Amino acid sequence: MNKLLIVGTVAFDAIETPFGKTDKILGGAGTYIGLSASFFNLQSAIVSVVGEDFPQEYIDLLKNKNIDVTGLEVVPGGKTFFWSGRYHNDLNSRDTLDTQLNVLADFNPIVPENFKDADVVMLGNLHPNIQIGVLDQMSKKPKLVVLDTMNFWMDCALAELLQVMKRVDVITINDEEARQLSGEYSLVKAAAKIHTMGPKYVVIKKGEHGALLFHNKEVFFAPALPLEEVFDPTGAGDTFAGGFTGYITQSEDVSFENMKNAIIYGSNMASFCVEQFGTQRMEKLEKREVQERLQQFKALTQFEIALEN
Amino acid sequence: MNKLLIVGTVAFDAIETPFGKTDKILGGAGTYIGLSASFFNLQSAIVSVVGEDFPQEYIDLLKNKNIDVTGLEVVPGGKTFFWSGRYHNDLNSRDTLDTQLNVLADFNPIVPENFKDADVVMLGNLHPNIQIGVLDQMSKKPKLVVLDTMNFWMDCALAELLQVMKRVDVITINDEEARQLSGEYSLVKAAAKIHTMGPKYVVIKKGEHGALLFHNKEVFFAPALPLEEVFDPTGAGDTFAGGFTGYITQSEDVSFENMKNAIIYGSNMASFCVEQFGTQRMEKLEKREVQERLQQFKALTQFEIALEN
Repeated sequence: MNKLLIVGTVAFDAIETPFGKTDKILGGAGTYIGLSASFFNLQSAIVSVVGEDFPQEYIDLLKNKNIDVTGLEVVPGGKTFFWSGRYHNDLNSRDTLDTQLNVLADFNPIVPENFKDADVVMLGNLHPNIQIGVLDQMSKKPKLVVLDTMNFWMDCALAELLQVMKRVDVITINDEEARQLSGEYSLVKAAAKIHTMGPKYVVIKKGEHGALLFHNKEVFFAPALPLEEVFDPTGAGDTFAGGFTGYITQSEDVSFENMKNAIIYGSNMASFCVEQFGTQRMEKLEKREVQERLQQFKALTQFEIALEN
Repeated sequence: MNKLLIVGTVAFDAIETPFGKTDKILGGAGTYIGLSASFFNLQSAIVSVVGEDFPQEYIDLLKNKNIDVTGLEVVPGGKTFFWSGRYHNDLNSRDTLDTQLNVLADFNPIVPENFKDADVVMLGNLHPNIQIGVLDQMSKKPKLVVLDTMNFWMDCALAELLQVMKRVDVITINDEEARQLSGEYSLVKAAAKIHTMGPKYVVIKKGEHGALLFHNKEVFFAPALPLEEVFDPTGAGDTFAGGFTGYITQSEDVSFENMKNAIIYGSNMASFCVEQFGTQRMEKLEKREVQERLQQFKALTQFEIALEN
């Protein structure tokens, strides 16, 4: 089985949506990526950090999904990273109510020995220096390195972000971030400019409007599945990234054609994530449901037009 | 050849976008629908009204596209409907600067004798009573009636709109209008509610984010083609409707499967419309270009995933 190395936060989230409110629950980019990737045939490991306040049951939950947690450091006496946010009525925007870095402030990632030769590396949204620190520990060049980032690092650590971008194959960002990073409004022009910064493949996430995959002059689009109810968008982007990298790791194929399938799988996994609060839906999800929904994605997008003379 | 009957405005537009500004140019829903549908093998006619100030060259332009203009009334001494608008920087929203109904205020549509048995009727955005007036003149039940409308009629003529909705097969509206009409935020729920108002097929246009086709529990999605530059969105929705109805008229097939193809063709035609000001691009467009772009739509959306065990 191929190996997927994930670096990303493992954290507490407190979430408010128009449909309800949670206390501190399991969250973090690494968690969502790991849960999503666990539906594929692969070996995965999460590199992250938590405090002594992090419940053993959450760690066991990851272990039970066959995720290697050797690289999940538990800091004695430390407090786990905490994020709290409130979604607006349309669920398309949110306000951050609180961010407590805690143990994340001094996080020094340690890649487990047997994942230094991972086939695929998923760099979840974190300070670019941490992402670079992970790449520096790899003993061989991975087949594919995927970078997720956000506007915060464009504002506060652009030089470091540009450094890590030179070392990755794929970048996943949302539409507004693509515009900020490139200075181009048109997403086609934005992707072309971001190509020149390093990543040969640019994935632009548009939330409920789907995701675009750019590679040179080629472009592919995966819609979001139209849902009756979106309950909580938290983690959807990370779940997308977990489906994308999970599928690629399993299939051992980093071609553009196969990446099309991978972003369909990313959208597929994300469509489940938003159906319940936090990680609830992903914890209980079954492979059978993923395959059934894949049929829905086919029905949603596949057509047969005979060309005319 | 099958017959497509189009009712819709033929008008003057004055447009401002971040890229430039026009004086009074050819516009109107009927014009855009007619130009778009002219790329298919069919007979079409426009029912509309203009004033004496409407240039013969514009009428000749429609005639040269093989559009029957017997039902285009020219009111002696009358002035043509005029709309003026300014688009915001993102081109996703616009302000109406001026609307002069002029001859449209007393428009009494007359369906040409040889189009009273049209196979497909496209009711462009107009007062619902005018749309009903056209349906009342049909000598036999059309295979398909498609209705376009807008929020203005939901605000000012809802009772009449609900009447015409009971008599159509397909409604095309944008996402905000679907929400207003149904009182539902989720587009899946909105479409389900709009089904109960009459139309068996609901097309929800999301502009640069594509279009959804709903039919009972089934849903299909056509993306907008990602473009380097959008120059002027005016007429894109009508051009979409012209491609949709044009393809269906040509293919004589009103099944859901064929409607998938039709909304792909609608998106295809609309992707050209926005590339230049007003009707410029559609006037010069060639069939060859439409077929080439269809290949781009296939590359954008079609994928091959083998199902797992």
